[in-house]
Amino acid sequence: MSVARNRPIGVFDSGVGGLTVVRALMAALPHERIVYFGDTARVPYGVKSSATVAGYAAQITDFLLKCDVKMLVVACNTMAAVAMNVITDMSPVPVINVLDAGAAAAARATRNRRVGVLATLTTVHSGAYVRALESCRQDLTIVSQACPLFVPLVEEGWVDHPVTALTAREYLAPVLAAAVDTIVLGCTHYPLLRPVLGRLAGDQVTLIDSASTTAAEVDEVLRASDLACVEQRLAHHEFHVTDFPQRFRAVGELCLGRALPDVHLVHW
Amino acid sequence: MSVARNRPIGVFDSGVGGLTVVRALMAALPHERIVYFGDTARVPYGVKSSATVAGYAAQITDFLLKCDVKMLVVACNTMAAVAMNVITDMSPVPVINVLDAGAAAAARATRNRRVGVLATLTTVHSGAYVRALESCRQDLTIVSQACPLFVPLVEEGWVDHPVTALTAREYLAPVLAAAVDTIVLGCTHYPLLRPVLGRLAGDQVTLIDSASTTAAEVDEVLRASDLACVEQRLAHHEFHVTDFPQRFRAVGELCLGRALPDVHLVHW
Repeated sequence: MSVARNRPIGVFDSGVGGLTVVRALMAALPHERIVYFGDTARVPYGVKSSATVAGYAAQITDFLLKCDVKMLVVACNTMAAVAMNVITDMSPVPVINVLDAGAAAAARATRNRRVGVLATLTTVHSGAYVRALESCRQDLTIVSQACPLFVPLVEEGWVDHPVTALTAREYLAPVLAAAVDTIVLGCTHYPLLRPVLGRLAGDQVTLIDSASTTAAEVDEVLRASDLACVEQRLAHHEFHVTDFPQRFRAVGELCLGRALPDVHLVHW
Repeated sequence: MSVARNRPIGVFDSGVGGLTVVRALMAALPHERIVYFGDTARVPYGVKSSATVAGYAAQITDFLLKCDVKMLVVACNTMAAVAMNVITDMSPVPVINVLDAGAAAAARATRNRRVGVLATLTTVHSGAYVRALESCRQDLTIVSQACPLFVPLVEEGWVDHPVTALTAREYLAPVLAAAVDTIVLGCTHYPLLRPVLGRLAGDQVTLIDSASTTAAEVDEVLRASDLACVEQRLAHHEFHVTDFPQRFRAVGELCLGRALPDVHLVHW
């Protein structure tokens, strides 16, 4: 039994969106400890330049490695799209990311080989989803759509509001016109819009939410690397944020369905 | 003639919104040099905590004072709402801000003494507009409305789009129900939504945009302090931003109607 097994998993995001991945990890791996980092002072990343996002990603990676994590989970599609090289170069531990997990799930799900990707501006511009999907299958037609208003709409709490439906109709139009049968929700905020998006896309279209796929991949890599936790009690998690924690705690408790006593403010 | 007169004016904002103030300053005071700072990497400020915004404001104030400015113009309502104490404590030069200028103009404009304020979440929560309006006149009824989706809608370019009209209708409903005759556009992005807001509010309601009021106040304070520039040639301006300058330059050239060759990236 290696001590490394009982070290925590580091999960990071630009804000609260990555908590959808934490929820999936808690459900799949209830004994694994999680150290979460949410860069709530500098959110959103999705409209910033690649160089700026990569600089922030390096700073968070350094922080989590100092927390002695056994694995890093990049739970932010924008960082996964533009900063994976920076993160993996710095990390002596395995790195999993939501983007590759989502792309793999979409490539498996499509039947007509036509896939839509909804993501932030920076993620779409990076071309990372197209590369990740094409590395899974070469026979795909891929239609990408930047949806810069989805994150603010979710953060306003308008997840099932006429404004959100009208916005989603506009963003989905070119994607549905391309007759895709699978759509990747390429930002961790977007699963909260699943009811609206599902109604507009219809039953024939599969919506891919990378949180549960990512959790399954974490489980697989931990086992393969002999890093799975051997503790049998429910894990204690800790959360670090860069803006004052009140709002994060409120949204987080709603998202995770449990109290979050252990939220710390990081002064950067 | 003091050398101080030929020093530049420092104008700062969380991003591009403050350029509406720069435009007004350029029109009113074409010979005054401007050093502009836009914190484009960390925008938006309007959903961040007061302490985080105050920390950023202090960092920018320090930067501009090192540029040897003769006056500071806080062209961001959110910073004006929560960080004026920090900025004025640090500054040996006069400090003007858009919030006090907007409040004074609204207090002068209203006839029925009922004023609406549209602003970011942080500005509304700070209560700064209510305090500023009440310090001008004690007989006002003030209705404040946070409009967190307006900045993302402007940045998406949807300034005259059905989604924006529907969003504006929702935000304006409680303000118009209170029968105000004057509405302060309490964020430097909002003047770009003037056509939509004007249609919804109707001819009987005056929309107050603080840019020109701020420029008039700058002019007045410069003269009173014997700081007005004596140069007679058109001034050269410089711009500093924290994210890569391409997008800032594009939006800025559109907003100011002139080329912006002198945009510098600040690495923080």
